[in-house]
Formats: sequence, C-alpha cells, structure tokens
Amino acid sequence: MKVLFAAPDDIRAEWHAPLTAACPEMELLEEGDPAQFDAIIYSAGGEIEDLSPYVNARLVQSLWAGVERIISNPTLTQPLARMVDPGLAQGMAEFCTGWTMRAHLQMDRYRQDGVWRSTEMPPLASSRAVTILGMGALGQAVAAMLKPIGFDLNGYSASGRAVEGVRMFGRDELAQALARAEILICLLPDTPETRDLLDAEHLAMLPQGAWIINAGRGTLIDEVALCEALARGHLGHAVLDVFRAEPLDPADPLWAAPGVTVTPHIAAATRSESAAAVVAENLRRAMSGRPILHLVDREKGY
Amino acid sequence: MKVLFAAPDDIRAEWHAPLTAACPEMELLEEGDPAQFDAIIYSAGGEIEDLSPYVNARLVQSLWAGVERIISNPTLTQPLARMVDPGLAQGMAEFCTGWTMRAHLQMDRYRQDGVWRSTEMPPLASSRAVTILGMGALGQAVAAMLKPIGFDLNGYSASGRAVEGVRMFGRDELAQALARAEILICLLPDTPETRDLLDAEHLAMLPQGAWIINAGRGTLIDEVALCEALARGHLGHAVLDVFRAEPLDPADPLWAAPGVTVTPHIAAATRSESAAAVVAENLRRAMSGRPILHLVDREKGY
Repeated sequence: MKVLFAAPDDIRAEWHAPLTAACPEMELLEEGDPAQFDAIIYSAGGEIEDLSPYVNARLVQSLWAGVERIISNPTLTQPLARMVDPGLAQGMAEFCTGWTMRAHLQMDRYRQDGVWRSTEMPPLASSRAVTILGMGALGQAVAAMLKPIGFDLNGYSASGRAVEGVRMFGRDELAQALARAEILICLLPDTPETRDLLDAEHLAMLPQGAWIINAGRGTLIDEVALCEALARGHLGHAVLDVFRAEPLDPADPLWAAPGVTVTPHIAAATRSESAAAVVAENLRRAMSGRPILHLVDREKGY
Repeated sequence: MKVLFAAPDDIRAEWHAPLTAACPEMELLEEGDPAQFDAIIYSAGGEIEDLSPYVNARLVQSLWAGVERIISNPTLTQPLARMVDPGLAQGMAEFCTGWTMRAHLQMDRYRQDGVWRSTEMPPLASSRAVTILGMGALGQAVAAMLKPIGFDLNGYSASGRAVEGVRMFGRDELAQALARAEILICLLPDTPETRDLLDAEHLAMLPQGAWIINAGRGTLIDEVALCEALARGHLGHAVLDVFRAEPLDPADPLWAAPGVTVTPHIAAATRSESAAAVVAENLRRAMSGRPILHLVDREKGY
C-alpha cells in the first residue's frame, strides 16, 4: 500500500514513526506520481491544490477532527475521513484532573523560602466543590476521572441532561452552578450563547479564591474582566488553554498577568499514539472495501 | 460530659470548633479541678506532668497516631487511645495523586514567558510508568486512586504481597522496580532495612528525568546523593514531604536546591474534619462503657 503524506514538515517529522509503526504494511511517501497512491494522509498545511490526478486514492484520512480547509477544495472527490481520537477525551480528562489537583492541594502555597507552612491544610476532596460547565462527552470524561478521587461534583448543562454522581444545573441555574465552584472547569463550545458568558457579572458569582480552568473555547471568557477579578483577589488563579487567537501573541498581556497560567492548547490534543491506530484501521478498511470510519458528510461539513 | 483539652494553644485554636461540632454534648475546657473531668483530649506539647489527680477520666484520647511522649509518663493509668483517622489515607492518596499529575503533565514546562510550546506533548497516563515503594494500606490507597486515571502501575513490597492491577516487585527486585519508575512514590516505613535505601547507586537506577515523591519517611533518601542526581540532570524533580528533622531548618540546603520542592509533612496529616468524628465516637464509647477504639497497648507502644 502506497500512501502520500500531505502534511507540513513538522507534522511529518512527528507522525512518520507512529504511523508506520501502527501500519507497517504501508509505504509512506512525501511525493511521487499521483496515480500510484492508494490513499492520502492529510494535515492542514499540506494542501494539494489539485486532487483530481489521485485517481486510485480510496481514502483521504485527516489527522485532525477539523477538516474545514480540505473540504472546501472542489477537486476533492475521494472519500474523506476525519480523526476521532479515543486518546483525546482521555487527555482532556488528565489535563483537567491534574490542574484541579494542583488547585485543590494549593500546591503553589508551598514556596521554597524556608518557611514551614504546616498549619493551613487543604480540605479533603469530598469537601471541595468542583463545577464543570459543559457536560457533553468531554465533560463526562472529566467527571468520571474526578469522581473516584472523591470531589463534590457539580455540572452545568444547558440541555438539562442528568449525569450520575454529579449535581446537575440546567439552563436557568448558571448562577447556582457558579456559586458552588471552588474550582470551575470550562468545556463549553463556542456558540452565540456561550460567547463572553464569563463576563464581570458572572465571574463575580464565583466564590472568593476560585480557580478557573478553561479547556473549551477562548471566546467563553471576557479576559479583561478575568484579569481584573484576579488582580483584586476575587479569583485565585486561571489556567487558560484556549484563546481567541492561537498561538497567543507573545505580547499578549495574559502571559504576564498575575494568577494566569497559559498552556498552548494541549488539553484536547490529538495523540499520535492513539490516532495512528485509527489511521491504520481506516487504511485497512479502505483497502479491503470495508466501511470507512468517521467519513465526512460534505453537506454538514464534519 | 466535661473534657480537658490538654494541647498547645495553636492546636486548641484549630481543633476546638470541629471537636465541639462533632460532640456537642461535650464541655471542652482548658483547665479546672482534675477530678471533674470525664476524659482528656491530648496532643503532644500539652503535657500534664502528673495524671494521677484525674481520677474520673475514663479515656485519654490522643489527636495523633504517635503517642511516644505520653506513654512514657509513669502517672498515666487511664485508658489511652491513639488516633486512627480515616481521612489520613485519603489525604495521602490525594497528595500523591496530585503531585504525580503535576509530574505526568509536565506542568512546569509551561513557563509564562510568551513562548507557545505546542509540539512536545506528554504521553497519556497509560504510557506513564509509576512505581510505588511500599504497598501497605497507604500504598494501596494511592494505587487505588491512580488506577482509574490509567497509569501503568508498579509496586515494590518487601513482603512480596500481590495487589490487583499493580505489577508487583518483591524484595530482590528493587532494581527492576526502580528502572521502570518515571515517577517514584515513596511510602516505605523507617526501618534498618529502608534507611538510606535510596542512595547514589539506587538513584542511578531510575530513568533519566524521573520524579521522586517522598511521603513516607525522611530517612529513606540520601539527600546529598539526591541533590547531586538532580543537579546533573539525571533526576527531574523531587517532592519531599518528610525529613530527618522536622520542621526542616530554614537554613537547610534542600530549600534552595534546584529541582526540590519541600512540603511541610502534610501528606499524612490527621484531618480535623474526619478525626473529630473519631474522637466523638470514642468519648461516647468511654462514657457508656462500650469498648474503646484504637486502645494503645502499653507494651507494644502503639
């Protein structure tokens, strides 16, 4: 099986080994006669202007969930599959759990200044209220990882869904969900309803010293109001993994804002270790004529 | 019920409210005629030189697990109970899980310097090997909290016990247990066998960049060898919660050693929230003549 790897250099360097390890029968090439390729592995930035000469390609497999760029290419007639990476939800849960533990244990209190701060103990997790905004597949994965640690879990879902082991708040109960949140985990999508939802008024509803972990969408938070709430001590800390524009500008004031930790959109990363297995499975399906997984519906766009 | 609170001022200030909340029928006093007291709640530092006038005290309840000081008082004839706090194992598991997550997610890589470090991702927990030295009650509580996150768990137990879901190594397999430990959690007791067990030779068996979390006993680690291994980059970081002498001297070089985080013996803390309930239960047992829990055997000393 000959496969064209249409991707930027840095992506090819990172993914070549895991892809060929997952699919050793594949010959993964950077270039060659278009007609010789049985499939294409694609990443945004590895654009092919004209896909029509790839007459024998039975699959174009995207490495990522988003396929906005290639789907608008009118020469694309081959089946296109997007990435649905089982490692993504796991990685998200690990990210949110790790930063929740850092907040919960108040790790940053223990500065290396020679002072033995033994009297102020954090409570146990059972006395620590965590609220998750957005209880879809990712929110539920995060809740499932936090639950065995023992946290007092609260969830906000505009759809009003019920989730076992989580005290759920519906569309009209955002204020109550926020009021309980010693640690607030944000996993809401970007919609007209959620844009700037965490403004000065809503941030003020959080308890004194609350932490915010935003791993959903950058548009959720009014960043000026956030920095003000941190500066006056109403909020304890904000861990921001998503931004209105990425990568975040090196001159952006968030980098230097007291109480802000910027992480580079890593919470919802596609993992080469788990995603390569998905690519291998889909290539084998395409070669043997079995149904392709995660086929993109051109009309819906995903 | 009148109870004498024989403890230093700071302990009395911290514990008065939770104790009286857990046992509202108790009148908790700082001083008074010894014969009027039905029981004594004791903490080291609140020593009573002569216990013989407390003729009506049916229980001396220690707030802590260790009772070395009061047990050597020859005037103690009253029943003495030590603290066995159900919150302790939970707190230990939370502490070790939190610092394991910080190591695993490589949180300290994301410095707030304007650099978007998006290419180097940590692996998922399933590809992260954690080794727990000491698989008694505390080691098992830690393993039980790490397991649902998905870590590749290894345990070392000199007794050769088996623990479900953990790859166990026995007395002669310490080298193999260390060689696997990207994150090493130390929960060994202080015995002639474990003293200085983590010396230069054993530290060198850990993989490059390994983290050490010591929440067991300070005597386990040769601190000079540890600092050398950190300084030359063989080890990634050491989180030390226990020391040969506590509180750690403000001038101790560990405070300033690169790659060392000192925490003030908080992992195995007795929690007023859970421990106060144990005190209340035992006072009621003593008053009603039912068997007292966690009674100290004077010959064994615990």
